[in-house]
Amino acid sequence: MVSPDTACDLILFGAMGDLASKKLFPALYQLHRAELLSPGTRILALARRDYTLDEARQAIRERLSEKLDPSEISPATMEAFLARVCYENFDFSSREGYTAMAQWRSEGPTENTLILYYATPPGLYATITGHLASLDCCDQHTRVVVEKPIGHDLPSSREFNDQLASVFREENIFRIDHYLGKETVQNLIALRFANNLFASQWDQNHISHIEITVAESVGIEGRWSYFDSTGQLRDMLQSHLLQLLCLLAMDPPSDLSSDSIRDEKVKVLKALSPLTQERIPTHLVRGQYTAGTADGRPVPGYLEEEGSAGHSDTETFVALKVEIENWRWAGVPFYIRTGKRLPEKRSEIIVHFKPAPHYIFDPDQKHLANNKLIIRLQPDEGMALQILTKAQGLSRGMRLRQGPLDLSFAKAFDTDRIPDAYERLLLEAMKGNQYLFVRRDEVEHAWRWIDQLLDNCEECGAHTKRYAAGTWGPVASIAMITRDDRSWYEDA
Amino acid sequence: MVSPDTACDLILFGAMGDLASKKLFPALYQLHRAELLSPGTRILALARRDYTLDEARQAIRERLSEKLDPSEISPATMEAFLARVCYENFDFSSREGYTAMAQWRSEGPTENTLILYYATPPGLYATITGHLASLDCCDQHTRVVVEKPIGHDLPSSREFNDQLASVFREENIFRIDHYLGKETVQNLIALRFANNLFASQWDQNHISHIEITVAESVGIEGRWSYFDSTGQLRDMLQSHLLQLLCLLAMDPPSDLSSDSIRDEKVKVLKALSPLTQERIPTHLVRGQYTAGTADGRPVPGYLEEEGSAGHSDTETFVALKVEIENWRWAGVPFYIRTGKRLPEKRSEIIVHFKPAPHYIFDPDQKHLANNKLIIRLQPDEGMALQILTKAQGLSRGMRLRQGPLDLSFAKAFDTDRIPDAYERLLLEAMKGNQYLFVRRDEVEHAWRWIDQLLDNCEECGAHTKRYAAGTWGPVASIAMITRDDRSWYEDA
Repeated sequence: MVSPDTACDLILFGAMGDLASKKLFPALYQLHRAELLSPGTRILALARRDYTLDEARQAIRERLSEKLDPSEISPATMEAFLARVCYENFDFSSREGYTAMAQWRSEGPTENTLILYYATPPGLYATITGHLASLDCCDQHTRVVVEKPIGHDLPSSREFNDQLASVFREENIFRIDHYLGKETVQNLIALRFANNLFASQWDQNHISHIEITVAESVGIEGRWSYFDSTGQLRDMLQSHLLQLLCLLAMDPPSDLSSDSIRDEKVKVLKALSPLTQERIPTHLVRGQYTAGTADGRPVPGYLEEEGSAGHSDTETFVALKVEIENWRWAGVPFYIRTGKRLPEKRSEIIVHFKPAPHYIFDPDQKHLANNKLIIRLQPDEGMALQILTKAQGLSRGMRLRQGPLDLSFAKAFDTDRIPDAYERLLLEAMKGNQYLFVRRDEVEHAWRWIDQLLDNCEECGAHTKRYAAGTWGPVASIAMITRDDRSWYEDA
Repeated sequence: MVSPDTACDLILFGAMGDLASKKLFPALYQLHRAELLSPGTRILALARRDYTLDEARQAIRERLSEKLDPSEISPATMEAFLARVCYENFDFSSREGYTAMAQWRSEGPTENTLILYYATPPGLYATITGHLASLDCCDQHTRVVVEKPIGHDLPSSREFNDQLASVFREENIFRIDHYLGKETVQNLIALRFANNLFASQWDQNHISHIEITVAESVGIEGRWSYFDSTGQLRDMLQSHLLQLLCLLAMDPPSDLSSDSIRDEKVKVLKALSPLTQERIPTHLVRGQYTAGTADGRPVPGYLEEEGSAGHSDTETFVALKVEIENWRWAGVPFYIRTGKRLPEKRSEIIVHFKPAPHYIFDPDQKHLANNKLIIRLQPDEGMALQILTKAQGLSRGMRLRQGPLDLSFAKAFDTDRIPDAYERLLLEAMKGNQYLFVRRDEVEHAWRWIDQLLDNCEECGAHTKRYAAGTWGPVASIAMITRDDRSWYEDA
């Protein structure tokens, strides 16, 4: 058991919103329950609702009861947790609330580390930062945790980062990409650098190509107008998928410090081959779903969703062939796809190793002859290594058979439940470890690449292609990989 | 389903002995049942017992019923199988029987391939070959299957091989090492050469050392005087363990033909570093068991076994550190051990990969940092790859955990039962494929190395060391590997 380093004053902006209810309070409760919160840690919940402290605690209690497993709740633990929580009715645009917040802070132990968590809609970020800039409760040690999106493109992310920088030091800014908090994503670090079997083969000499799939079965879930102004590229690719790509492709860091890791990630982003106008037709497919099915039920198309404007060219699916122009990866394509209303919720990475230089088995089995490492991020977190063994049985002679060496994390280890990403992220923010958070230059290099991609897309007049809800995206996505004589991996 | 290539006339010398009863007839029955015996294939059983044909068939029926699973026996199949079997009461040292055998052969279809199987005690091999040499029923196509031991040392094996060569062509001589018939041993070929992930790391750049353990829990099972004149080195190391070593260490053959594979195996035997007198004290441990336990029951020591002469320096255990002087393996020790009255029956190979060149995780976990490939030959045939992943759970930070990627052959594949080695070996002999059989030069190079080892042992007066039955051999075996800062793998 690791004892928490320091006591914190954690202030949650937007404490009655979705993120706080579904993720932050459950994560804080779990940390409390695991005795990973310092006894001195206090939580200030800020929201618009006109609650008394008791009403606010009651609201939080109810939400926790909905989210947590009953076995994880005991009345005593719950009351001890809620005793940490204060509440202020808060108008984000009025100075008054910020003063009350500063008051709460000044009444507590000043040695507590102050952490401000922006759990509001992104539209309020600028307002909050503006007010904080004029208050003296933030100092050189005050930390801030912000959720994506960090801007909408390079200029807006720069503006937002500049504003944050006027109040906080970069070493105190914790930009969340919650994928980095997932145990399976952190495991990429262990898998790549603790296993020489993989580390020594992690390059263009040994790997032919890599797939990254982040498939969602949901549609846009009532957020049509927000989503329509964003799209899958900005919403998912710029953040989660490029982060996965960086962790997969980065050179080995010389140590596990935040900056060693993030320096290597930035090098990958800088080496991404630009998707020029010439490449767009062969390297990028954008799609938008039409009516189809989800979980066996008929569902409307994107343009018929509630709140739809009835016309839009925003993509709900994107597939790309990405190349990285460096010594490690020259000539190794990364095929990346993410979309909504796909047949299932599934995030996975497939590393395709090159076949042996010479093949001595039955010629008709030659298509089997490459090893694959399959890393399942969700559901059923784990990994599998596809290898070839001799097919058993007399009548087969020396025939090969493909089989997985399998490791399901949940089943393999007699460990506790797999912690939610936000538990890890809140814990690391409280400890002041930034290695699971996104540095400013990472965000900005990612936007630079995405902006140029979208500009080129627009200039060459590429439109989204249709796909029926419940399918794996437009046929153009299959055609893209088929042209390279490959196919998207399907777990048979 | 592969149809059998040709019909055979299979003659079993010693058809009422242990090998025939326990292995050969059950294997032939299984081949018959799987329709892998040509309808024209006939079997002639030769033994000393004065049986009529009906009595012989009845004896075979009874033995099959003991060995086979009841679900594998149907009366119709059994009768059809037994209808293939003829019987001759046979005196190995009298010409008469060989004439009757030739008569039986001449009465059948002459296009059947003639296969002679020496399933007698080795003391009769010379007698049989001598009589065959003077008969004209053997021609340039006649095949012979012989069991180990092929001699007792290099001169006697040469003499035996010369005698065989006076009657049979090398291409028709099938020397059995039944380990080569095991599915898991053949799987070494698939594993090494069909998986580039392993093929590209199978050398001194990537592997630190390899263990081979063939442990038996039985003692000498009533064969004291035979065993005492042989010992574990000649009985197990010269044959099974050196064969495993060859399959593990050989360079990739350019194809799967019998001679391509055996050429590579011979290269390994020729490159074995001699165990000189200087090396004996650090590279070789011979042991002999004393009273102890087996399966929880007290058992006598080797010198108190039934039939014991009461004194002997014959080894029942041997552990060696073997080096191979070639480009692939320079500097990579192979630690080999085999013995009787060890704690369990277990045959396995452990390939220890080198750690990554740089280590970035917690220093106190550095001892975990090498990948291991564990190949289980018996029991529970399968394989596992030990890899490191992130330890799950919040309180652990970036801690590593060792876990297996596991593949149990019996469980993984919805295949039939795993065929016995003799089914495969008989089938290949009938097809004329020699790749699972030992070539003359293999046997002789193995003996040359063993002879020199035993000579050096004797000259430097090294005696066997004691170990209690039910332990992993003399402590000197542990000391031998500990001096290299390593340990025998124990599956915790």
